[in-house]
Amino acid sequence: MCELLGMSALHPTDVNHSVALLRPRGGEAGPHADGWGLAFYEGREARVFKEPIPAAESRCLGFIAEYDFRSSIVIGHIRKANPAQFGRASANTHPFSRELWGRSWVFAHNGKLPGVTEDPRFALGRFRPMGDTDSEHAFCFLLDRLADAGDGRPLGPNELEAVLAGPVALLSELGELNFLLSESVHLVAFANTKLHRVQRTCVEGTCRQRVVVLATTPLTDEPWQPVELGRIHIFAGGTQTRRTEVAA
Amino acid sequence: MCELLGMSALHPTDVNHSVALLRPRGGEAGPHADGWGLAFYEGREARVFKEPIPAAESRCLGFIAEYDFRSSIVIGHIRKANPAQFGRASANTHPFSRELWGRSWVFAHNGKLPGVTEDPRFALGRFRPMGDTDSEHAFCFLLDRLADAGDGRPLGPNELEAVLAGPVALLSELGELNFLLSESVHLVAFANTKLHRVQRTCVEGTCRQRVVVLATTPLTDEPWQPVELGRIHIFAGGTQTRRTEVAA
Repeated sequence: MCELLGMSALHPTDVNHSVALLRPRGGEAGPHADGWGLAFYEGREARVFKEPIPAAESRCLGFIAEYDFRSSIVIGHIRKANPAQFGRASANTHPFSRELWGRSWVFAHNGKLPGVTEDPRFALGRFRPMGDTDSEHAFCFLLDRLADAGDGRPLGPNELEAVLAGPVALLSELGELNFLLSESVHLVAFANTKLHRVQRTCVEGTCRQRVVVLATTPLTDEPWQPVELGRIHIFAGGTQTRRTEVAA
Repeated sequence: MCELLGMSALHPTDVNHSVALLRPRGGEAGPHADGWGLAFYEGREARVFKEPIPAAESRCLGFIAEYDFRSSIVIGHIRKANPAQFGRASANTHPFSRELWGRSWVFAHNGKLPGVTEDPRFALGRFRPMGDTDSEHAFCFLLDRLADAGDGRPLGPNELEAVLAGPVALLSELGELNFLLSESVHLVAFANTKLHRVQRTCVEGTCRQRVVVLATTPLTDEPWQPVELGRIHIFAGGTQTRRTEVAA
């Protein structure tokens, strides 16, 4: 099973904090040894680093940890490949990223969606996978729906939810679907089996920071809570802005 | 002025060779101190590393140089920003990359295309810039033309040339246009002011390698030749497959 990591903050914060959480899960403390990936935003563009090797062994991830990258949104992923299906390859490593309406959309998935690549209900249009995973196919399917529905203007949380609810419900029928999605402003989270969250707020002295961290399993001793299953959760600026049931 | 670097090889070769050529040009031997970028392919997907800092100072580029990346196509770029126009930012740093038909398309440009962003002849459709440069706008314009013309099947060199000739001629009227473009199989090169190439062939013993390297200015003591101006040159497998005049 893979591990997801998501972060939304009111003000840009050290990406290092996320790296520090992610790194030991990939092949050291955890069994997720087939790849790691980390995406964070600079303006509308995501910078994506990923490798099809254990995170704990990655010099690249170690290198990022030394850097002073700051971002308001981070999406990370540690991958345990299904060896019968998809090999170790950069193109099969999350997060996936595509440009739509002049901004990067980033997606990471935990779970399995059997049949998604053959099912005509999930036939693809404009966006096509570069690798072989069910996850990237599902991402392209969601982006096609977004591209069909929008006109190029940025979507607010209500519009995002309205466009995604149907397609997410359809995907969720196929199997295990826990995912994080962002377009640089909003962090969209959905889980039908497992996802946790913790809220961090700092309003003392000059500090006015607010951060929400999402992860497959609790990563610290803080009071993590399970994310309500079967609903689209939308975060922005370090707090939740929408929670919507997507039951089919 | 910026510097371009391109490489097409018969068999995957060390990306390090390209890094070693590129690195000193960015802020050490050369004045191109505002950013660097390097793209190379793993299958149909490009891995793109770029930073809005001098290449010669980059720890990230130093890190890549230590890695054992291998690829048959590399596109690199060293950027000297036009300070009046576009700031130092990752989104303004070449190479640019987009997915089309399930593969990464990568583009790097040397030159200036005044008016391209306002001219209705270059109005954009599906692909939109994430940064502010004339170069990224031109890339999106070319991708729109490709997306309009193709049906998702890989394009051969004749088809690539047929689709690109008109749009490239139109862009070339605007100003200085020296660019490299790839979709993982072909390396497309065009110049209307300056680009050089050198061919390296090794057929001794067990070696069957063939490499063509393109650069704004000769980078070694080898017999570099100027690339014929005003024509689309298409390389694959380390050699030239097409050369077509695109004069309007």
